[in-house]
Amino acid sequence: MSRAVYTGKGGFAMAEDAPVEPGPGEVRLSVAFTGICGTDLHIAHGHMDHRVATPAVIGHEMSGRIAALGANVIGWDVGDAVTVMPLAWCGTCPACRAGHSHICHRLTFMGIDSPGSMQSSWTVPASLLVRLPADLPLSTAALVEPTAVAVHDVRRAEIQAGEKVVVVGGGPIGLLIACVARAAGAEVVVLEVDSHRRKAGAELGLRLLDPTAGDVADAIQDWTGTAGAAVVFEVSGSAAGLASATSLLSVRGRLVLVAIHATPREVDLHRFFWRELTLIGARVYQRVDFERAVELIAGGAVPAGALISKIVPLGGVDDAFRDLEQGVGVVKILMDCQPEAL
Amino acid sequence: MSRAVYTGKGGFAMAEDAPVEPGPGEVRLSVAFTGICGTDLHIAHGHMDHRVATPAVIGHEMSGRIAALGANVIGWDVGDAVTVMPLAWCGTCPACRAGHSHICHRLTFMGIDSPGSMQSSWTVPASLLVRLPADLPLSTAALVEPTAVAVHDVRRAEIQAGEKVVVVGGGPIGLLIACVARAAGAEVVVLEVDSHRRKAGAELGLRLLDPTAGDVADAIQDWTGTAGAAVVFEVSGSAAGLASATSLLSVRGRLVLVAIHATPREVDLHRFFWRELTLIGARVYQRVDFERAVELIAGGAVPAGALISKIVPLGGVDDAFRDLEQGVGVVKILMDCQPEAL
Repeated sequence: MSRAVYTGKGGFAMAEDAPVEPGPGEVRLSVAFTGICGTDLHIAHGHMDHRVATPAVIGHEMSGRIAALGANVIGWDVGDAVTVMPLAWCGTCPACRAGHSHICHRLTFMGIDSPGSMQSSWTVPASLLVRLPADLPLSTAALVEPTAVAVHDVRRAEIQAGEKVVVVGGGPIGLLIACVARAAGAEVVVLEVDSHRRKAGAELGLRLLDPTAGDVADAIQDWTGTAGAAVVFEVSGSAAGLASATSLLSVRGRLVLVAIHATPREVDLHRFFWRELTLIGARVYQRVDFERAVELIAGGAVPAGALISKIVPLGGVDDAFRDLEQGVGVVKILMDCQPEAL
Repeated sequence: MSRAVYTGKGGFAMAEDAPVEPGPGEVRLSVAFTGICGTDLHIAHGHMDHRVATPAVIGHEMSGRIAALGANVIGWDVGDAVTVMPLAWCGTCPACRAGHSHICHRLTFMGIDSPGSMQSSWTVPASLLVRLPADLPLSTAALVEPTAVAVHDVRRAEIQAGEKVVVVGGGPIGLLIACVARAAGAEVVVLEVDSHRRKAGAELGLRLLDPTAGDVADAIQDWTGTAGAAVVFEVSGSAAGLASATSLLSVRGRLVLVAIHATPREVDLHRFFWRELTLIGARVYQRVDFERAVELIAGGAVPAGALISKIVPLGGVDDAFRDLEQGVGVVKILMDCQPEAL
């Protein structure tokens, strides 16, 4: 089996190893595709070297088929098409006991804290498998994980049909949130400065505005009959995006914090008081989000496959990361992890 | 009738006028007591001179009796004991249309934007009256308005019985929030630096901690079995209080923003992401909050009368404000607005 191994700041090496045979309750997967997400890019830039123990196999947006079953695995067969919810929790901390195991105090994220899917063969607990429809292309299915993020974010927002929603930031997650919110009956506008991303969003049938051209506040005021937006998703990670998100909300509006703001940010708390706004933190997902993501993609409501800009063989991992960071016109890059692609 | 008239930065003058006769739908009240709140103190310091048109009659925490009925007032009689929800809304803006008239885009607050209750006679719309039980002392009833603030804050938090709750700041509103949360079945700890306020809280049967003595984070960790608090009310208005509130919450914890933070504050948004926290803005109240406040005070669950440090005649308004701002050991001061007290 082949692996792309992150060796430290900025570098990958290819390696060949024997596959890891599945223990009790585990399955060995033949990985079909692995997408590269913003966190992977952070890792490759060395920004997470304090957390990622090198050499490391990263990657967590994947699709594949079951290649071998360990003992005591029930309900799964070799050949089944699957993706993986890449979380491991302790089961005993206060978060787990309260039913929030996805934000366990000791959460392990596969592909960051333990081996991920940038390899042709990946051995994982069967309890984390999510079934894929047999007729869903495995390339598209590699977008189930980021779509599950979007489903979780929209679920945290408790969106009602007919609500007017703004998404600040039109990268892959922002565009997926917009599609999921639309599928929930919301009217959606995405704010995005990059013209290529706006084009990608328009191809999904979304409405996008360039916040640097014209007065977005006026446009949203007009669109909402001076009420403001019921929900804003902050997906930009920028101070300006956060300020914009806060200012665009209606009374009792909900601001869902999707992007990671690593350092404390100034927040207009007076606006939160004055309009009785709510700020909602959202992190990863739960099984129900994966299952809904599969439904939305398979049913066509979220045309996730349209976000795939290119597919490269796993051996081209360095080029793929470079393309993504230079990234003009690139939305999502997948790596083909199948032996015949290498 | 007598009025205390705010004449500009720092000063009041007493004035005698004819009472304002009630128009259609209005009642004239004989004011019994008016409390002084933090906003009144802000006004008296001149901090709100941009908003308060002088000469002004301020005050909005009151109790009294109906002295005269205007035309078309149904369901009320002369002599009825009442308090007033001091809000006027437009009825047509997006907030009002969405059912949130208490945070109307054009909200008028009586006692700030229009005449208040620091006078012996006050004429108000009958639609804003809240009935008081005949056996509730009118002094205690002057605390219904701040208790309605506390009820609204607790309602915004959606507290469940058995939840562990921290109140950051033990002034009158903080102590009332603690009492209301306790009545909702929560276990409550109040953090307060001032020893006199801690003593006042202890007399209400509350548990208080001094955040400057010992490690509050450790104490809350121990108290909650390392989970953190389900709900924290930020009532301090300070940057330190906000940071503490954020750090003490459990996963999925709710931070209710009660104090006014007039300038943007740094917020640890990474913590909001990591623990899926929610920040909830809360402002004033709705009729249901007043009605619940009356029930809680009348039934004894909220011993609001115990917060009254002293009662002074309306003519002593300057002394009352000075006492409050120097305020050692003073929690709540009422002004007796009845003619016989002047």
